[in-house]
Amino acid sequence: MLEPNIQNFLGCDSDYGSADIVLFGAPFDSTTSYRPGTRFGPSEIRAQSYGVETYSPYQSRELSEKRVFDSGDLELRFGDPQNALEAIEGRTETILSDGKLPFMLGGEHLVTLGAVRAVKKRFPDLKIVHLDAHTDMRDDYLGARLSHATVMRRCLELVGDKNVWQFGIRSGEKTEFELCAGRCHFFPRLFAPDPRRLSHAFAYMIDQLDGAPVYFTLDLDVLDPSEFGGTGTQEAGGMSFPELLTLIKMLGRLNVAGLDMVELSPTYDQNGASAAMSCKLVRELLCALRG
Amino acid sequence: MLEPNIQNFLGCDSDYGSADIVLFGAPFDSTTSYRPGTRFGPSEIRAQSYGVETYSPYQSRELSEKRVFDSGDLELRFGDPQNALEAIEGRTETILSDGKLPFMLGGEHLVTLGAVRAVKKRFPDLKIVHLDAHTDMRDDYLGARLSHATVMRRCLELVGDKNVWQFGIRSGEKTEFELCAGRCHFFPRLFAPDPRRLSHAFAYMIDQLDGAPVYFTLDLDVLDPSEFGGTGTQEAGGMSFPELLTLIKMLGRLNVAGLDMVELSPTYDQNGASAAMSCKLVRELLCALRG
Amino acid sequence: MLEPNIQNFLGCDSDYGSADIVLFGAPFDSTTSYRPGTRFGPSEIRAQSYGVETYSPYQSRELSEKRVFDSGDLELRFGDPQNALEAIEGRTETILSDGKLPFMLGGEHLVTLGAVRAVKKRFPDLKIVHLDAHTDMRDDYLGARLSHATVMRRCLELVGDKNVWQFGIRSGEKTEFELCAGRCHFFPRLFAPDPRRLSHAFAYMIDQLDGAPVYFTLDLDVLDPSEFGGTGTQEAGGMSFPELLTLIKMLGRLNVAGLDMVELSPTYDQNGASAAMSCKLVRELLCALRG
Amino acid sequence: MLEPNIQNFLGCDSDYGSADIVLFGAPFDSTTSYRPGTRFGPSEIRAQSYGVETYSPYQSRELSEKRVFDSGDLELRFGDPQNALEAIEGRTETILSDGKLPFMLGGEHLVTLGAVRAVKKRFPDLKIVHLDAHTDMRDDYLGARLSHATVMRRCLELVGDKNVWQFGIRSGEKTEFELCAGRCHFFPRLFAPDPRRLSHAFAYMIDQLDGAPVYFTLDLDVLDPSEFGGTGTQEAGGMSFPELLTLIKMLGRLNVAGLDMVELSPTYDQNGASAAMSCKLVRELLCALRG
Amino acid sequence: MLEPNIQNFLGCDSDYGSADIVLFGAPFDSTTSYRPGTRFGPSEIRAQSYGVETYSPYQSRELSEKRVFDSGDLELRFGDPQNALEAIEGRTETILSDGKLPFMLGGEHLVTLGAVRAVKKRFPDLKIVHLDAHTDMRDDYLGARLSHATVMRRCLELVGDKNVWQFGIRSGEKTEFELCAGRCHFFPRLFAPDPRRLSHAFAYMIDQLDGAPVYFTLDLDVLDPSEFGGTGTQEAGGMSFPELLTLIKMLGRLNVAGLDMVELSPTYDQNGASAAMSCKLVRELLCALRG
Amino acid sequence: MLEPNIQNFLGCDSDYGSADIVLFGAPFDSTTSYRPGTRFGPSEIRAQSYGVETYSPYQSRELSEKRVFDSGDLELRFGDPQNALEAIEGRTETILSDGKLPFMLGGEHLVTLGAVRAVKKRFPDLKIVHLDAHTDMRDDYLGARLSHATVMRRCLELVGDKNVWQFGIRSGEKTEFELCAGRCHFFPRLFAPDPRRLSHAFAYMIDQLDGAPVYFTLDLDVLDPSEFGGTGTQEAGGMSFPELLTLIKMLGRLNVAGLDMVELSPTYDQNGASAAMSCKLVRELLCALRG
Repeated sequence: MLEPNIQNFLGCDSDYGSADIVLFGAPFDSTTSYRPGTRFGPSEIRAQSYGVETYSPYQSRELSEKRVFDSGDLELRFGDPQNALEAIEGRTETILSDGKLPFMLGGEHLVTLGAVRAVKKRFPDLKIVHLDAHTDMRDDYLGARLSHATVMRRCLELVGDKNVWQFGIRSGEKTEFELCAGRCHFFPRLFAPDPRRLSHAFAYMIDQLDGAPVYFTLDLDVLDPSEFGGTGTQEAGGMSFPELLTLIKMLGRLNVAGLDMVELSPTYDQNGASAAMSCKLVRELLCALRG
Repeated sequence: MLEPNIQNFLGCDSDYGSADIVLFGAPFDSTTSYRPGTRFGPSEIRAQSYGVETYSPYQSRELSEKRVFDSGDLELRFGDPQNALEAIEGRTETILSDGKLPFMLGGEHLVTLGAVRAVKKRFPDLKIVHLDAHTDMRDDYLGARLSHATVMRRCLELVGDKNVWQFGIRSGEKTEFELCAGRCHFFPRLFAPDPRRLSHAFAYMIDQLDGAPVYFTLDLDVLDPSEFGGTGTQEAGGMSFPELLTLIKMLGRLNVAGLDMVELSPTYDQNGASAAMSCKLVRELLCALRG
Repeated sequence: MLEPNIQNFLGCDSDYGSADIVLFGAPFDSTTSYRPGTRFGPSEIRAQSYGVETYSPYQSRELSEKRVFDSGDLELRFGDPQNALEAIEGRTETILSDGKLPFMLGGEHLVTLGAVRAVKKRFPDLKIVHLDAHTDMRDDYLGARLSHATVMRRCLELVGDKNVWQFGIRSGEKTEFELCAGRCHFFPRLFAPDPRRLSHAFAYMIDQLDGAPVYFTLDLDVLDPSEFGGTGTQEAGGMSFPELLTLIKMLGRLNVAGLDMVELSPTYDQNGASAAMSCKLVRELLCALRG
Repeated sequence: MLEPNIQNFLGCDSDYGSADIVLFGAPFDSTTSYRPGTRFGPSEIRAQSYGVETYSPYQSRELSEKRVFDSGDLELRFGDPQNALEAIEGRTETILSDGKLPFMLGGEHLVTLGAVRAVKKRFPDLKIVHLDAHTDMRDDYLGARLSHATVMRRCLELVGDKNVWQFGIRSGEKTEFELCAGRCHFFPRLFAPDPRRLSHAFAYMIDQLDGAPVYFTLDLDVLDPSEFGGTGTQEAGGMSFPELLTLIKMLGRLNVAGLDMVELSPTYDQNGASAAMSCKLVRELLCALRG
Repeated sequence: MLEPNIQNFLGCDSDYGSADIVLFGAPFDSTTSYRPGTRFGPSEIRAQSYGVETYSPYQSRELSEKRVFDSGDLELRFGDPQNALEAIEGRTETILSDGKLPFMLGGEHLVTLGAVRAVKKRFPDLKIVHLDAHTDMRDDYLGARLSHATVMRRCLELVGDKNVWQFGIRSGEKTEFELCAGRCHFFPRLFAPDPRRLSHAFAYMIDQLDGAPVYFTLDLDVLDPSEFGGTGTQEAGGMSFPELLTLIKMLGRLNVAGLDMVELSPTYDQNGASAAMSCKLVRELLCALRG
Repeated sequence: MLEPNIQNFLGCDSDYGSADIVLFGAPFDSTTSYRPGTRFGPSEIRAQSYGVETYSPYQSRELSEKRVFDSGDLELRFGDPQNALEAIEGRTETILSDGKLPFMLGGEHLVTLGAVRAVKKRFPDLKIVHLDAHTDMRDDYLGARLSHATVMRRCLELVGDKNVWQFGIRSGEKTEFELCAGRCHFFPRLFAPDPRRLSHAFAYMIDQLDGAPVYFTLDLDVLDPSEFGGTGTQEAGGMSFPELLTLIKMLGRLNVAGLDMVELSPTYDQNGASAAMSCKLVRELLCALRG
């Protein structure tokens, strides 16, 4: 009797009932204005994960000791953002209503809005922690209000002023930078990196949030293109992997109610280094989460 | 006094007023379900055209003797097919109302619908000549009625049964093949190529159409992937360049009211051979058109 | 309750018990002497199969009407050919002993030997039908007797002289060509293609075999590199897809006891056209098999 | 009435008469001894610029407030360096004589000589600021005196000893290093980076130059290949983007009489990150210039 | 005692004194107007040749029975066509004066002129057989008289009207086609291929030449880009490998005084199929030559 | 009289008799479990070395003043690790017995075991200095005891506990990390880099080793994937080139009895930057060695 071919992210082989965390993919990139391809992100991460170890030497933890279920990718309708967001919101609600933590793999950044809608309904005092190279704060983009370029504006409207914390941003329109400075907690990345300053700001945020429920959204283009080139819009002057790791290791001190990691575009990851780093980041994120 | 940098398709440097034919690009690919990238098609064709000669030895004609104006690319809203189709329809109407022939470069095949709508309004007895590897005859695709996979179904509804002639098709669902056989003039490509049979069918069509106005849509994946690999969904067993050329050379015997060439995806054209062939095909199409 | 992520070749979703045919992957390439990479073949075929239709217009058959189970890939020990062959032989025996037809996806051509050993044990009068660009008839290669370059020599020793039929071969050492001509039924491809001659030879073979059990091994480099470039050793002057299709469509007239398709190397398939054709060939092979 | 397709670098849409700065491309790479391809640099920068914002958060400046005209690329004769240099010199003279600042995009580094010749004629006390990985100080290269490997030697002969300031150099022959140390102001990059030391040296230079007219030439291979891989000869151990940005932000304190940015080779920029950084650098350079 | 690392084209390991044929590379591409890269052709052919067999099943001949010496690549001055042609002429004269047959690997097509000059001096009644996609018959190109686009014009001037035989041509200016038709023996390729017609023309030429000394120049872009994509300017509608092979097999009936094979550009040969075919063509050419 | 084509690493053109150091390649990758391709490493390094200067500005030394002989690549039997290790051991013994220093270029890391066996026989008190991203300390890998994943375990068994010094490691199983910490001198890389700490540890080791014979093995994946992406298993968070250079410059203070540099995989080095850095590292290693 032979077994069917189940493909999980490495080590995420709990059954659904006993899992604490549920992974799922949201392979959508229809509003991408520059170079599409993030739709292939979730399946690439899953496929390449077998090249990574389950042990995190950075945190001295074993991924296989966490209880994680991988529910595969949603089937989303290309060219219809509203429909895709509804499907994402539905999947997130299912996971939350079963008492589990949703962890979404994008896809373009717009997918975050679907998940945030579901988490916000369950946790009305939700805060958002946003790591990104871009503000994503336009009100519309070529007339569209649902777009990778407007997603954080829609999220900000949902959770309210001063409830979004932004790190790593270094590209946007002048008016977007002004909006971030006025209505968010804004830590742009405009000078040569000083790792301590960034981690100090992150630690300060943890104190301020004081246990409030948090949605954590990691746009991978926050990383420097030298280390993470596999994304549609590469912005020089970004975070290094060790810097990001320092932040991730603090994640257990946040009350994470939902999270995502978005914008890997395998099309621009010629040698696979970005997929490899993505797999490591999923491992480190899973190992860092509480419980 | 230095001049600004005008970038045309090679040799298409008439002024708008005196032009007979108007090129424009429709860089849209938001409904692409498999591998996006055709948005980069029109600009790549324009950029690579300087590597091609203006003289067609196949037709003994000079492109520079035709009067063609290149009006650049439309700026289309990604993720919003209806909006994009309206923009395309508008541009096509402008060109038609100025008494010129519209020649659109895609983009995914859905863009054809926008142009067909405009041409159909002006020419109520419009026929469509459709070269493609795929039927594109689904009624909906994952629930979406505007999609690259449904575009010819929408076009068929517009022009009516028996007004679509299809060549080269070799992939689709069983029900689509049945629909094509029943409601279109259907010349699928299911056996080893026999160049004469194809050109005989094309000549037969020319006789039958008898001067009726025709919209000619060329999905480049009708070609064999060995000769034209730069497209999202490659279907083995396609036409060769000489076969296609034979058909194009007959184009002057049709009453072409509008035309397009779609589905070049530079992302999958690693060595540029598909862009080079696309440029040649634009030249041959322009040289073959009446007038 | 969410489902786990089962990844099958498109449409091969029978349960094991009721399946007639069982797919499995043998991702091994350790003896490849020139350019490795075929280990990635089976997973790539499975991943890309969702871009293909289940309907074969060439045979007017639906893949979803066949009962096929996909048991995923074997985990093979790199650098140890004997160990890998034993694992393949074991898997093949299991499938045969459950009364099902084994269909293996390689991997390098050496994997064929493991499957042939198992099938030969069950069908002592086994014949082999071998499509390939290369003779694969060396006695040893740099001293190794188990190698992609010796695999058909080992198979020939197993089934005996005049029990191997070879098509498409166009590369090898002089002594290998002499051996093939003397001890096999040998239809090399040394002149410009004449599709009828090839299909006549294949039909002749079908008559001669007269219902004897057959192992069918398809080395994809039998195809012309223009149509199938994604393989380690490309040999110009090969078969076209329509020619191969003509042979595959006759497969139902053979008593196939086991089969494989080997040597896709995604590393050399930059635009994915070879993976796409491989998926189509799996569909056509499955549709062509009896039952 | 449709408009022709004008392609500028993003936001550089002044008319020529009112422009302060004039961009032009010099797509020449015929003397490249290792890996050619920089001829595609200027057009790639122009094409990719639409993926970049016009706002510089680093300088809090808007590119669209500068008056810049983009005059497109020169048409240069391949294989004839003297002819190409004359064309470049002519274009530079035209721009200077119209009272505007010339900004050239290469091409290989040899093109700098053409521009320097023109600027030197107008500003006899010209100094050169040279950022590069290579000395470019050979007297001849395989017998050729006009070459990418000799260009700074020719420039040095033109402006005289102690009038060239060099930063970032880490590759060359022993005799070249000795020449630079003796006849230029030489700040090679031979140890682990210390950002302050580099910016101090640059500030020191600004003081010493004391308002003298300066030609600024930026060979992009001064950057580390990890951040900027799209160049023919990659030299490990280079500058980071933040380090270079620090220097560029000081540019307004120099009296720049002409400038260039050379050696982007799109052929070696597989994911487009180098083109993206090049676009950002053009924006930052334009924003940093006086006036 | 260890041996130094001698790298020959496979099987070309005669010592110089006893060799009948001498291979050498001319890695020059400075006048290439579109996409450079052929400078890497000769070394790539040498490096990849170890993946090819020495036995030609097409001709039933063993390469190792021929006496061939591989003298490596010339070191040519980039950006100086006259200098490069002199070096090529010198090397060719040396080989001829030692009574051996020169076989040059390009490089761009301009290199042919250097070799033809030397062979013409020794054989005043020289004829040229020219296989190419392009006429190469311009009088100048952007003012340059020594260019890949003018090389056959210069060769024609050298050997005189009616002494050049051209096959496969399908691209050029109108005036070039007229010149070829008037002053050469011209067999352009403007219709669907008919292998017999081409080989009949070649056989006719062999009769007409009647033993006169011949320089044979094979521009690899004469092949169809589907089979040979690794070249700078791909022209659809070219020869197939079997068609070319048919001509090569007749080469022993010509009195070949010198030959070359040019225009492989590894930069555009992503999967190596063009390099592999180039190696096979060198083997077939060597096996086909007299003696 | 023309010379044969000898291909050395740049500047390594001593004759064997007078050489102090002997380079050789070990192009083997059969046990690579993830992504093969390092077999192409040695030939790529040799081929690309002509793009590098012989002068090291970092050490103010000339490579051409060292006496180095390049003996080319071993011909190894793919799929047979024991056979390959014996060939490597044999070559290393020959070099040592002629009183020269062996410098091997891999290939996968397993090749190190062959060289260490030979060096250990000659220098019974041998120590190993190991730079790597991975522990390579498994006892077996899928049952195989000779594997890239077990090589340092085998080496440790050979030289004994506390005789292996490890730097840069950041990936492995939990039990491997425990073994390294217990039985080796272990300097893993688990935090943001601090260049001084690393060089202090290296200097401390030099003191402790006190002139004992050392085998130095450099797995290039110790470098950060941003700077060195051309390897099969990329591990984020690695060393920078300047950090590694600092260690290499101390090499003259060690009593090096043999060395290697392994794991360049040109397949994953799309723009050639990793090959270029490999060439520079060979130069710096050769310049840094005593004598």
